[in-house]
Amino acid sequence: MPPDPAYPLNAWYPAAWGHEIGRELFARKICDQNVVFYRRQDGVAVALEDACWHRLLPLSLGRLRGDEVMCGYHGLVFNSAGRCSFMPAQKTINPSACVRAFPLVERHRLIWLWPGDPALADPAKLPDFYWNDGTDWVGDGGTFVSLKCDWRLVVDNLMDLTHETYVHAGSIGDEAILEAPFEATHDERTATLTRWMIGIEPPPFWARQLGKPGLVDRWQIVRCEAPAVVVGDVGVAPTGTGARQGDRTQGVNGAFLAALAPETATTCHYFWNFVRTFHRDDSGLTAALQKAHVNQDAGVYDQDHRVLEAQQRAILENPRQPFYNLNIDAGALWARRLIDDLVARERPSAAE
Amino acid sequence: MPPDPAYPLNAWYPAAWGHEIGRELFARKICDQNVVFYRRQDGVAVALEDACWHRLLPLSLGRLRGDEVMCGYHGLVFNSAGRCSFMPAQKTINPSACVRAFPLVERHRLIWLWPGDPALADPAKLPDFYWNDGTDWVGDGGTFVSLKCDWRLVVDNLMDLTHETYVHAGSIGDEAILEAPFEATHDERTATLTRWMIGIEPPPFWARQLGKPGLVDRWQIVRCEAPAVVVGDVGVAPTGTGARQGDRTQGVNGAFLAALAPETATTCHYFWNFVRTFHRDDSGLTAALQKAHVNQDAGVYDQDHRVLEAQQRAILENPRQPFYNLNIDAGALWARRLIDDLVARERPSAAE
Amino acid sequence: MPPDPAYPLNAWYPAAWGHEIGRELFARKICDQNVVFYRRQDGVAVALEDACWHRLLPLSLGRLRGDEVMCGYHGLVFNSAGRCSFMPAQKTINPSACVRAFPLVERHRLIWLWPGDPALADPAKLPDFYWNDGTDWVGDGGTFVSLKCDWRLVVDNLMDLTHETYVHAGSIGDEAILEAPFEATHDERTATLTRWMIGIEPPPFWARQLGKPGLVDRWQIVRCEAPAVVVGDVGVAPTGTGARQGDRTQGVNGAFLAALAPETATTCHYFWNFVRTFHRDDSGLTAALQKAHVNQDAGVYDQDHRVLEAQQRAILENPRQPFYNLNIDAGALWARRLIDDLVARERPSAAE
Repeated sequence: MPPDPAYPLNAWYPAAWGHEIGRELFARKICDQNVVFYRRQDGVAVALEDACWHRLLPLSLGRLRGDEVMCGYHGLVFNSAGRCSFMPAQKTINPSACVRAFPLVERHRLIWLWPGDPALADPAKLPDFYWNDGTDWVGDGGTFVSLKCDWRLVVDNLMDLTHETYVHAGSIGDEAILEAPFEATHDERTATLTRWMIGIEPPPFWARQLGKPGLVDRWQIVRCEAPAVVVGDVGVAPTGTGARQGDRTQGVNGAFLAALAPETATTCHYFWNFVRTFHRDDSGLTAALQKAHVNQDAGVYDQDHRVLEAQQRAILENPRQPFYNLNIDAGALWARRLIDDLVARERPSAAE
Repeated sequence: MPPDPAYPLNAWYPAAWGHEIGRELFARKICDQNVVFYRRQDGVAVALEDACWHRLLPLSLGRLRGDEVMCGYHGLVFNSAGRCSFMPAQKTINPSACVRAFPLVERHRLIWLWPGDPALADPAKLPDFYWNDGTDWVGDGGTFVSLKCDWRLVVDNLMDLTHETYVHAGSIGDEAILEAPFEATHDERTATLTRWMIGIEPPPFWARQLGKPGLVDRWQIVRCEAPAVVVGDVGVAPTGTGARQGDRTQGVNGAFLAALAPETATTCHYFWNFVRTFHRDDSGLTAALQKAHVNQDAGVYDQDHRVLEAQQRAILENPRQPFYNLNIDAGALWARRLIDDLVARERPSAAE
Repeated sequence: MPPDPAYPLNAWYPAAWGHEIGRELFARKICDQNVVFYRRQDGVAVALEDACWHRLLPLSLGRLRGDEVMCGYHGLVFNSAGRCSFMPAQKTINPSACVRAFPLVERHRLIWLWPGDPALADPAKLPDFYWNDGTDWVGDGGTFVSLKCDWRLVVDNLMDLTHETYVHAGSIGDEAILEAPFEATHDERTATLTRWMIGIEPPPFWARQLGKPGLVDRWQIVRCEAPAVVVGDVGVAPTGTGARQGDRTQGVNGAFLAALAPETATTCHYFWNFVRTFHRDDSGLTAALQKAHVNQDAGVYDQDHRVLEAQQRAILENPRQPFYNLNIDAGALWARRLIDDLVARERPSAAE
């Protein structure tokens, strides 16, 4: 039996920020499929297979003609449903001349693509990502295009924040993380790791955000909605003000947002944001938080990516299977199990 | 059964321009074989396997010694027939110590190499390429070395000029090409596509060459002589002056010349020229035509190569077989069939 | 039966110069294994598998903590025997959590690593390399890291100095090498090629070293101690002064030293030195000799490496087996046979 693929196909994956797609052809590979994106004149985003039916030239090398795409080699035209509407020097169009059209939904400032069976592409299955919509939570994220690691390594990374102590020492890292108990829970579609650090010295980053002296209660509640979204509810409040019991009004609350799309089995696109509910009108703070995450290889996420890409290279050189696990991996293991289940459902034999 | 190779071996392929080969060792790969070229003192061009019999070092890293090549590692010497004539520190020369010598013919300013069975290398099988010999037709071409596509994609490209409308819009492209009827003919060794556009507005390039106002008759008569040569007889004449009936005296006539050599299954060398019979003494025009074809990625052939290399990448990523075809592919399909027949004759089983 | 590997594992290989390893983590691949090196606080050099037990991140991306290494991802700590001594957020340490520790011996200014079965790592099997220890013989060598050829091609190169005539014409090359008889001898662990050139004009390099006019006797006595060490005893003396009979006092004597480690099947690390017993206090000469060997692609070894890397590329393109051999290959063939025997002893079937 060949190994299972690295991702399920029947899922919504983030393909682009809404602002990336306009009246120019835009190419990106999602789940090993080359896709060309554009917006119709009515603003609706379209995703087609990026290979002409005739001789495979990427359609993204052609040009838009109204709501349709014209191939840059022999001029075949495809409409937004992928149907060929023009062939050069002939009047009869082969009715089977089509390129694949991918189901798309634009929501929460991202464009989500369904690479699998279009008949199963139910918008009700879109992951919850409301933190990213720019209303109650504010922040200015970005994209890591073609990050050189299996997308699941990013899930592992985000579901276990112990790594902050080692990868991010000096900013958000903290020995207290190692000592606090944590709890891993899950349901059919989500896995959650919850860690409360009660009465600790805040790490430098959070001390600055809170702007109050004294010990804090710190929380990290990280949730993966399988397969492609991880949201981390994080923050601190002065200890004894009831944050753990539900009253966070004295504290500061942020959320790290990750929407992941496999590009290939060993590369991925990572749409990220860090949003907050405090100092929402402080655009300087927004910019500073952006820079804290990504800053010419010195940001927190830059540190993670060095580790993730090195880990991927090591896996390719040394395909020891399976990984050995620690207690801290409980959240990641549940997330992986949910992903594995989605993949397993798509096995050829599973369809019988 | 493994897939057929991408080229027949028993054929003459262009290996170099005559002026490229002299009294220096010159390396080029043809049909997946590393070849070293040089001229003997009598001016005759020689092609040997570019790997020393002893330890495989490329002979092209050695040096000429009279009419012979000396390996740059241990000094073995090979004569122009590939026979070893010196071994270091020993007097007896192993009589089987040879490198392969390839049949070569220099004709029409090119050096043609036969990579297959030398016993079959009949100069009578050289393709007709007289347009390139610098006498009646004038022009100044060039070479694309290691173009990153299967050489047959270039044949496809040249045998169907519909692509001019899309790839070369604004220069030689023309909507009239789409409307004109065309005819595909063939014989045992050649495939020809003929298209006449009667009474059309000339496209900008040809209007300039003709230098007369008014409608024109335009012709494109493209012939592939399998496997490696394509010649396109192209031009315009004022409409009604009898060009189609054979009198081109009022018009201007050019020819695009392509001699192709596979380097590997997915790369090739493309020796090109654009020659003409009009304004033959205008060297400024010769230079301008050269520049119109190749000009720092802005020439007509530069446009083609972007398309060809993108098509090759797409084929490698997406080996959908076979291609879908349109009516316009009739000429290319006949050329491919002739090539396929040459390849099929070399199948191991075909020899029985 | 798969082809034999390119190297025996049960052998001492040079991994680094002693001065390369200190209180920083140092990564190098030896025999296809990623290794991280450092010195303990007591100065003893340590070599561990460069992949964390937990998730494979290279330990060399972490940091030293006393005598132990801490992984840069989740903080696991490994002691100098490879045993895990700390796991984050848990008190019980899985007793099987180990990375591999490689036997190391520091001798003759190099650090020697045993990549095979540690139980067989007997220091008595270290090759003799006393010329390199900086006492009686002086010289200042260097390292070619990741030289792009099979390490055995370097052995071939050094065991046959005929190549000097062609690769190093003008410095140490000499037609006399071709005419002098040579003798290949061997025992269980070493192969030796001896060549005496009696009463010859010295080549330019040696004439300068000797500093006396007149003809010389020149010797080249090259010995491979399988698998990884080649030492060439070379020099000249005024002819008739008895050098061949054992009295070298009138001459000048040098030795080229090569210690080789396979990095992969097609790349290697080459620790080299050229040492001498003449003008031992002349540091300008030491520097000049260094520069004669390696000097921005113009040194003698730079010439060799161009040839070796070209030969490796040719072998990969053209895996003709076996090589054809000349009389001059006698020394290299004995060295190869000793190496092949070491490899053969490690065949799975050989263990039964």
